[in-house]
This record gives sequence, C-alpha cells and structure tokens, in this order.
Amino acid sequence: MTVVTKEIAFQSRGNCDIIDITPQVAKNVKESGIGNGIVTLFVVGSTAGITTIEYEPNLLSDFKAMWDRVIPQNISYEHNRTWGEGNGHSHVRASLLGASLTIPFVNRRLTVGTWQQIVFVDFDNRPRSRKVTLQIMGE
Amino acid sequence: MTVVTKEIAFQSRGNCDIIDITPQVAKNVKESGIGNGIVTLFVVGSTAGITTIEYEPNLLSDFKAMWDRVIPQNISYEHNRTWGEGNGHSHVRASLLGASLTIPFVNRRLTVGTWQQIVFVDFDNRPRSRKVTLQIMGE
Amino acid sequence: MTVVTKEIAFQSRGNCDIIDITPQVAKNVKESGIGNGIVTLFVVGSTAGITTIEYEPNLLSDFKAMWDRVIPQNISYEHNRTWGEGNGHSHVRASLLGASLTIPFVNRRLTVGTWQQIVFVDFDNRPRSRKVTLQIMGE
Repeated sequence: MTVVTKEIAFQSRGNCDIIDITPQVAKNVKESGIGNGIVTLFVVGSTAGITTIEYEPNLLSDFKAMWDRVIPQNISYEHNRTWGEGNGHSHVRASLLGASLTIPFVNRRLTVGTWQQIVFVDFDNRPRSRKVTLQIMGE
Repeated sequence: MTVVTKEIAFQSRGNCDIIDITPQVAKNVKESGIGNGIVTLFVVGSTAGITTIEYEPNLLSDFKAMWDRVIPQNISYEHNRTWGEGNGHSHVRASLLGASLTIPFVNRRLTVGTWQQIVFVDFDNRPRSRKVTLQIMGE
Repeated sequence: MTVVTKEIAFQSRGNCDIIDITPQVAKNVKESGIGNGIVTLFVVGSTAGITTIEYEPNLLSDFKAMWDRVIPQNISYEHNRTWGEGNGHSHVRASLLGASLTIPFVNRRLTVGTWQQIVFVDFDNRPRSRKVTLQIMGE
C-alpha cells in the first residue's frame, strides 16, 4: 500500500467559476503508479467547493442559477461586516457544497461516468490562485 | 493493507426514489475479509447522489419535499434545451447532494448509527439501471 | 500502512450549534504515528452533519440563517408525526449537509487552510451527547 500526495494549482475567476479538473486528477492517478485505490480531493480554502457534474455549458448555467436562487449574493451577510470583502455568500455556499470528494480508481482509471466530470467551484467574488490537494492511496 | 473493489447494481424508479443500500454495503464489507478500514461509495452517473438518513417513510417524504421546494422541477433549465430529456433539475440536485460517501468500519461493521441508513437518491425523471462502486480499503 | 480508529465525544446544544473540532482531529492525527494519509470523519446519528467553514462568529450566524431560510423549522414535516420529536427539519438538513468528510494529512498535519476549520453542525432541537468516528489511514 502506498500514499502519494499531489497538488493541482490553477487560476480561477470567482463568481461561480466551474473548472473541470478531471484530466489533471486522472493524470496524477495514472502517474502515481498505484493500480487500485482511492483519490481524496481536498479544497484548501473556505470559499470554494468540489463536486461532480456533466460538464455541459447549459447545465453549468443552471447550476450557477441554483446558487443565485438558494444562497443569493445580494442579501445581508454578517460576515461582510467582519472583513468587508463582500463574500459572505461565497463562504456559505462553499460550506454547503463541501470541500472534500473521494473517488475510487481501478486499474489506474477513475470510476467516474462518461458524462460525469470532477469540478472545482469557485464561489469567491474575485479571481484567485487556487489549489486542490490530492491524496492517492492504494496498492 | 488490502483494496477490494465491489459494485452494487439495482433498478431505480427515478423521481427522487430513495433506496436503502445499507444491507448490501454491510454485506460487501463483511465479505471483503478486511477488519478495519473505510468503504468509499461512488455513484456512477450525474443524476443521482448518496447520503445517510433515518429510513422512515414520513422522513423520506420530507426529504423529497425539500428537493421540490429548493430545486424545483418545473422552472426553466437551460440543460433541457441541450438534450431534451427534461432532467435539468435532476443534474442540479445530484451535484448539490454529492456522488461520494466514505464510511469507516471497525471489526467488519460499519460505524453507522442505529437510525442512520445509507441511501442512493435517484433524481432522474425515469427508471434506470444504476450502479454504485465500493472501494473497500483497510487491514 | 496502518489503520487507527479514534472517537471524538462531546456535548452539543442543538439548534444549529456549530462546533470546531479541528484541534481534536489534528491532535488525533498527530498522535496516530502515521505520517501521510487521510482521516475519514463520520457523524454517528442522523440529525447532525460535518463540513468546513471559516470559524468566525458572524459567518456562523450567516450559515445558521441560510438553514433557517432554505430548510425552515416551522413548516410542516411528516416525520414529526412519526416520533413527535419536532425535529423533521433537523433530519432533512443533516442529510443534505452530509455525515462524512475525508481530509488528507501530510507530515502529520491536516491540509486545511488557515481560515478553514472542521465543524460538526448539530441540527437537532435539543442538547445531545455526540460522537464522531475518526478512521486514520496511511503510512
């Protein structure tokens, strides 16, 4: 059994920017030399989350629209008085979506479906440098 | 340390069908021969999710009612113009709930509570054949 | 590769009590003697969940306000007819947030951000004794 730690780093644009990180995750799993196991993805930071979705532009719009409806930006957030960054909604959305995702792989391949991509969702209100930690474990 | 890959396959009816998969997960963990570790459950596909709930008919109704309220079916979804399948709401719900769940087990037993079942939630708008990948790891 | 099982036990006050369990998780990981791996946190019970958040009082208020808005307590829940405990909203909230969180650690340190804490969210409507199972795995 082996543990291989990797990191994916990228720029995101904020405002519900949805980034497909499937290729980088698949590449890191393949290069780890581990055949079967799991990869744990963890978002460092508290204004972004991770999930899976069919990466299709219209559906991405629907997903963004859901966030605007369910956790709107333009209502009052106490947090905006703390730092004055205006990203209270970003934090609340991120905590609901979740910072962690664990995906099995078999024969070096992720067990995701054909129409199922791994996405990083940046809820912050400005562009940022982002990173996701990958813990690849198996044998 | 060992890795054992299993798959649970079943028919689901769609429309927020909530299926208790605890017995199959528990059985596969027990039969894996691994004493202590974790089982990672992963939903293959992008219109279903996984979580835990007290599997009680009235509560299942409440959970379904929440989805109808928070992410309604009968509002406009851009995705419905892409494929014409009318399941935009299914995808958005699935991405919010999440496709992955990781559960510890100790002495071959899942550490779930007595009133806590593992459920597959099918958000699609039609019956489908479904599968969940189980990656069982431990020693 | 080693598996170490730990348990965190504490009292929570219910009603969206948000408890920072980062120090206990970090301590247990450090004391496990495992250098690199993952810790799987699992909430035993069906009226509480787990996530990460910037543990800042104003933001905690915002997070609670979101739950009151999205899954209100004072609407009708069928589950409240089953047991008469009045905590239908607690169960629905818990199932949406999720009972499981998996976090990588490297050189015995959790890979969480500086402004990112691990929190147990008690949605029940009364104080309770709570426990979270930690499965620490790695090498």
